[in-house]
This record gives sequence, C-alpha cells and structure tokens, in this order.
Amino acid sequence: MLAEIITIGDEILIGQIVDTNSAWMASKLNEEGISVKQISSVSDNREHILTALAEAATRADIILITGGLGPTKDDITKRTLAEYFNVGLVLNADVLANVESIFKKYNRPLLEVNRKQAEVPENCEVISNNNGTAPGMWFNDKGKIYVSMPGVPFEMKYMMEEEVIPKLKMVLTLPVIIHKTILTVGEGESFLAEKISDIEDSLPANIKLAYLPKMGQVRLRLSAYGKNEAELKDKIDAFAHKIVERVGINVVAREDIPLEKVVLNYMAEKGLTLTTAESCTGGYISHLITQHAGSSQVFLGGAVSYSYELKESILGVKNETLWQHGAVSSETVKEMVEGALFKFKSDYAMAVTGIAGPGGGTEDKPVGTVWIGVANVNKTLMKKFTFGNKRLQNIERTAVAAFYMLITLLRESEK
Amino acid sequence: MLAEIITIGDEILIGQIVDTNSAWMASKLNEEGISVKQISSVSDNREHILTALAEAATRADIILITGGLGPTKDDITKRTLAEYFNVGLVLNADVLANVESIFKKYNRPLLEVNRKQAEVPENCEVISNNNGTAPGMWFNDKGKIYVSMPGVPFEMKYMMEEEVIPKLKMVLTLPVIIHKTILTVGEGESFLAEKISDIEDSLPANIKLAYLPKMGQVRLRLSAYGKNEAELKDKIDAFAHKIVERVGINVVAREDIPLEKVVLNYMAEKGLTLTTAESCTGGYISHLITQHAGSSQVFLGGAVSYSYELKESILGVKNETLWQHGAVSSETVKEMVEGALFKFKSDYAMAVTGIAGPGGGTEDKPVGTVWIGVANVNKTLMKKFTFGNKRLQNIERTAVAAFYMLITLLRESEK
Repeated sequence: MLAEIITIGDEILIGQIVDTNSAWMASKLNEEGISVKQISSVSDNREHILTALAEAATRADIILITGGLGPTKDDITKRTLAEYFNVGLVLNADVLANVESIFKKYNRPLLEVNRKQAEVPENCEVISNNNGTAPGMWFNDKGKIYVSMPGVPFEMKYMMEEEVIPKLKMVLTLPVIIHKTILTVGEGESFLAEKISDIEDSLPANIKLAYLPKMGQVRLRLSAYGKNEAELKDKIDAFAHKIVERVGINVVAREDIPLEKVVLNYMAEKGLTLTTAESCTGGYISHLITQHAGSSQVFLGGAVSYSYELKESILGVKNETLWQHGAVSSETVKEMVEGALFKFKSDYAMAVTGIAGPGGGTEDKPVGTVWIGVANVNKTLMKKFTFGNKRLQNIERTAVAAFYMLITLLRESEK
Repeated sequence: MLAEIITIGDEILIGQIVDTNSAWMASKLNEEGISVKQISSVSDNREHILTALAEAATRADIILITGGLGPTKDDITKRTLAEYFNVGLVLNADVLANVESIFKKYNRPLLEVNRKQAEVPENCEVISNNNGTAPGMWFNDKGKIYVSMPGVPFEMKYMMEEEVIPKLKMVLTLPVIIHKTILTVGEGESFLAEKISDIEDSLPANIKLAYLPKMGQVRLRLSAYGKNEAELKDKIDAFAHKIVERVGINVVAREDIPLEKVVLNYMAEKGLTLTTAESCTGGYISHLITQHAGSSQVFLGGAVSYSYELKESILGVKNETLWQHGAVSSETVKEMVEGALFKFKSDYAMAVTGIAGPGGGTEDKPVGTVWIGVANVNKTLMKKFTFGNKRLQNIERTAVAAFYMLITLLRESEK
C-alpha cells in the first residue's frame, strides 16, 4: 500500500519553517505497513496544487495533504480540492458549530471570513478538529483516498492519531505489523551490526531489522509483517531477546523512549531522587529531564556552575582543586558530583565539566575534552571523554554519555 | 528565476530523519532572489528519480539534488543522472585524489567501492567536497542547471555557500537583493500589521515585507529587489527606521539573531554579568544562553531549583514564603531572583517559577501560570503570565518572556 504526502504553503518553500510534519506522518504510516512513495512541498498556487494531486494519484493509493486551510485569502487548498474533484462547496453545520464555539471561548467576534471555514467540498467526509477551526476532510475518488488536514503540527497529529490512522486501518486491508525497539548506547552502528550479524542473517523474510543511529545511541527496530498477531509477537519477542542477550550492557531499554526517560522511569519506580551539576552542558541535561511531565517526582534540581566561583559557592568545589587541576579534571568533577549529592540531598547525582568549544581548548585539554561523574552515597564513578570540535554536538554527546554512566551506576547499585 | 529541490533517499520517506536541508537551501536561494517552486523527497529508485528530474525540469530553471551519493549499492543518484543525461561515467582524477587523501588520513584501506566514488557522469563539472568523499556535480543541459550534492548537511552546506551560490550568481543574471530583519517581542502579528499598515502600504513595488512569527516573537523582514545596491540599501534602511520608530519598545534587534543572543551581545559589550534561577523552565533558559560560543563572558551560571528544598538551600528563599504564598507567587519569584543576584554575585539575574503542566494546576493557579522576575542591585521587576496547557510551549514562552523582561530592565538601567 503506497501513500504520498503533499504539504501546501509558501512558508516551507521560502525556508521559513522546516517540514517536520512529513517525517512524523511517514513514520506513523510506516508503522502501519503503508510505505510513503514521495513527499512534495508545493506553493499556495491553484495550478501547482492541481498538478501535484494528479501526479501523486498516478503513483499512490493514499494522498495525505496538509496546509493551506487557514481563513486568509492565500489559503486555497479547499476550493482547489473542490475544483480537482469537480464539486461545489457546502456549509457544514458541525464545522460551523465548532468554529463558533472556539470564537465564543476566546470572546472574539465571528467574521464572515471565519464562517467560510465551515464550507467544505460537497463530496467530503468531515474529520473533526478538536484543536482548531479548520476541519479535516476525507475523500474517496476513483479508488484513491485523499485526506486534507491543517498544517499546524498539533492539530494534524491529533487528527492522524485519533481519526485518520484508525479509519485507514478500518477501510484498508493492511498487514498486521508489530514493531519492537531496543535502545542501545555507547557502541556504533557497524560494531553492533557485526556483533549480531548471525542473528540478523537468521531472521525470516517477514521480520526486518533497522539500525537507527542518533548521537551516541543506536535504536534497533525489529518489524514483523504477517497475519497472525499473537504468532508475530512471539516470534519478534524471541529475536529481540536474542539481540538483547548478545548486545549485553549497551542495551538500556526494550521500548522506544528517549534515553533520559529510561532513567526517569526507573528511578521513579524505585523512589529515587536525582540532582545535577552542569558546567559545559549549561543546563541541557536538566532541560532534557524537565521536559517530561512528572519529572519532579525524581528530579530535585541542580546547579549550572559555569564560573569557578559558582562551582565553589553552590557545589563546594575547593578553590585549590580548581587552580591545581583545572575546572576540567577528575578532581573537579568528583567534587562537583559529590557536592550536588550531599548539598542537594539526593540519592543520585550527575556532574559534567568540559570544553564545549569552539574556544577554550589547550594542547593537553583540546576542545571536546569532557569529564563526567555520577555518584550515590556509596560510590562515585568518573570518566574522561574526548568528543569533537562542534559545540552543540559536544553538549548533546556529553548528555548522552552522562545518562549512560548514571544507568551503569544504577545497575550496579540497585539490585 | 525558479528552482526545485529534490532529496533522494529512503531515510526521509520512512520518517527516520527530518529533511532540514531543504529549508536551509530554500532560505539561501530566496536570499539571492531565486524562488523555490517545489521540494520533493523521492526514494532510491531509478525510475522514480528519472520521473522526478523530468517533472522538475518542466517547472524550474535550476534543479538542486541532494543525497544518494554514498558508496553503497543503494546509492544510485550518480548512475541515474548519467542515464538521464544519456552519458557514460568517467573516473575523475581530482576526485580520486581527494578520496585517497581522506582514506590515508584515517588510515583505512581503499576498497574498490570507494574508488567508484571518483566516477562521475562525463558531462558534469565536478564541485570539490572538502568535507567528505562524495563529489558535487554541476550539469548544464537544455538550458537548465542541475546540481547534485551529498545529503550530509555540513557537506552540502559548505558546497552551497562556497561553490554553488557563487557560481549561480556568476552565470545567472540575478537581481540585487538586500534583506533587513527587525526582531520584535511581546506583540502578535496582527497587532503589528495594524500598527504599521500605512508604512507597509507605502512600500514601493520592489520592497516586500514579511511577518515571520515564532513563539512570542515576530521577525519583520524587509527585502528590496533591484539593480543598484547602494540605492536599495538607503531605501530599505529608511523604511526599517520608520518601522522601528513606530513599533517602539517591542523592537529588540535590527538584525536576524536569536533573542538570547541580543541579550548576550548587549551585556558583553557593557561588561555585565548574568545568573539565573529556574523552576518551571528546568534549565532551558541557561541552555539557550550556553549554546552560544562565548556566553561564559556574560553568564556565570544558575540554579535549577525544582524542589522547595533547593529553592531554600541554593537561593535562600524563605520557608515561610513558600508555605504562605506557594512556589508560584510574586513573593517567591522575588526571593528567587534576588537570591540569584546576591548569592551568585552577578550584575543581573532572572528567575522563573510556574506550572508547566500538564499536572499541578489548581483553580486559582491553573496550568500555564508563571511568575517571572528580573533584577539588578537597584531594581526588581516581577510579572505574572498566563500561558496555555502545553508543557513544552509553556517552557518556551516563559523563556521568551523572561528575556524580554530582562531587556526592559537593561534599557531602564543602562543608559
């Protein structure tokens, strides 16, 4: 089953926004066994949209369209779809009620231009929008399915998850697909591939393995295709088990979640608390943690100690340690992490100090040199890393390495 | 002058990576007066690539292609281009020398598959790749320009900036274009549009104004098209000046830089230092600051005080303040920001405390309630905000509002 995605709007074509919608939609469709043949971004131009729709229909069974549904003059998706299907526009009472209720909620007058948002091509089935005024629209035409959705990411995502994907599964005969993701940290893609090559070679034709690398982490995703869900599940679990056993300590999760969430989930379950002391990551580690709802159950807080003075005053790092060994040293990171642990009174602490770059490197401590420490009341682990010369990558890789070290200490300690 | 961008490779179509290249390329092309008509992502499939090239050539004068130039079997862009132009592949000595030098540098044996990377279609002009083994290729065919580049972002960006854009400017008669960006904070797009509508109406046909809104900020970008650079510059500066005067305090920069960089540049110039005390933003504000090289000149560090205890122990917030008024209150944010200012010994401090959500809201303090404080030794400003119910958006909007408040205090104080 093939799909195409068409995004409509000039914002993408002038480079004002990055099209993140399409990748998200493509990954959701792939999970259901629908392959995406092409993604096209076209302008708010009648002829151009008509051509794109016609071209897509020659290649795909399902055409998903986002954007161009706003109330302003340059949003022409709806009337162009009506032209494409050769139908008129009709006022839809449910959509009008939704628009009216939104305007009432925000106490804004309903203009004629807003009423027009309730007009839809007469051959469409309306998909309700719980998060905005523009309706989604589903069309069946000459054996193809067309779905038009707003370009606002959270409106589109809600529609896809709640309405479009379930409806596609209902009306199409899609294969049963089961995915199983294994999150690994600390080894490269090619090393992992070599380590599990015989397991990969033994996979049956209906189970595929994908390597999804990202900044010090590799996700191994098994996908099983077939008809019998229970049978597929048993099979995929058996292979996942083999891979997990073989890869060993580099496996940190058997589900598709962010690395910091692995730590949060585990510590929340055990009732443990965490604090941080960040120098070169400058708050990025605590930001990763606190972007997740409920993180306050585990995370008490931390220090961003960029200057020598704050390393001393907040964390209690000794002045002579800093001057004798430098801010980027095992001695300093040890005092930082133990300072966080005892001063902030948490069960676990993590600390990082390094030279993110591009400036600040020296011959014996080049840009990319980072010391990471993790501690609980019984043990402190410290390790030196040498990353590259790109500031943002160094910050990201430091965070990943720090979480992995924390997982190592948690494994040793919480048995 | 019209361009199209074609990205080749399955990673985008399965949603594994987001296509950030195209937006970057589109914005660079637009700066030079080249409009992008369509962006297409297609699979590593010969027929599909041939169709995409042919379709693009019916619409555009310049076709930029990225991806599919790696050494492995599934990278078929090069031989498909040769087929499209109906030519053979030839070994290019310069490209081979580059491939060999890279393999020598990393001490890896040169395989036959790597030697093949030095083969290019015989009608192409090679664009050298200083950052990798895959060459760029420039083709002139039937009055159209085709350029093929690697999909690795930093390889592509370097080629575009150093080779492709300069060459396009040389061989094409492009208009002179000058852009001028004004960064505003704190007012919505429609309010700004109304405020400057007469200035916008008075713009000559060769000067366009674009509104680029993003999370509490709106960038106003003036673009002037013509032949005489000096004349355009005078004209655009005059209109920019009018807009800046009219918009007033909401203008925070007359160049296209991130909001936090406005603060950093100004404070660095004045020799001022900054610290932070973050609760609901959980390190995001300090992360925004410290992602910029050289931020340590201004930023000393800060506290991420998620728990009551850390608000007390690091920042010196009084226990009775927290219990009497709650963590989200003017009293608490005042003690937080003054705690940071005096304990961390900086010239300026900023503090935020709020309910990011989705949990934790109450009737009088719903999710999205945020108190922000900024201070110097003479003055403390505090303000309450009511944002929405989306955690990540609340974090971002809080950061933007906090930087804007800091700019307000800097303006009042540093005259």
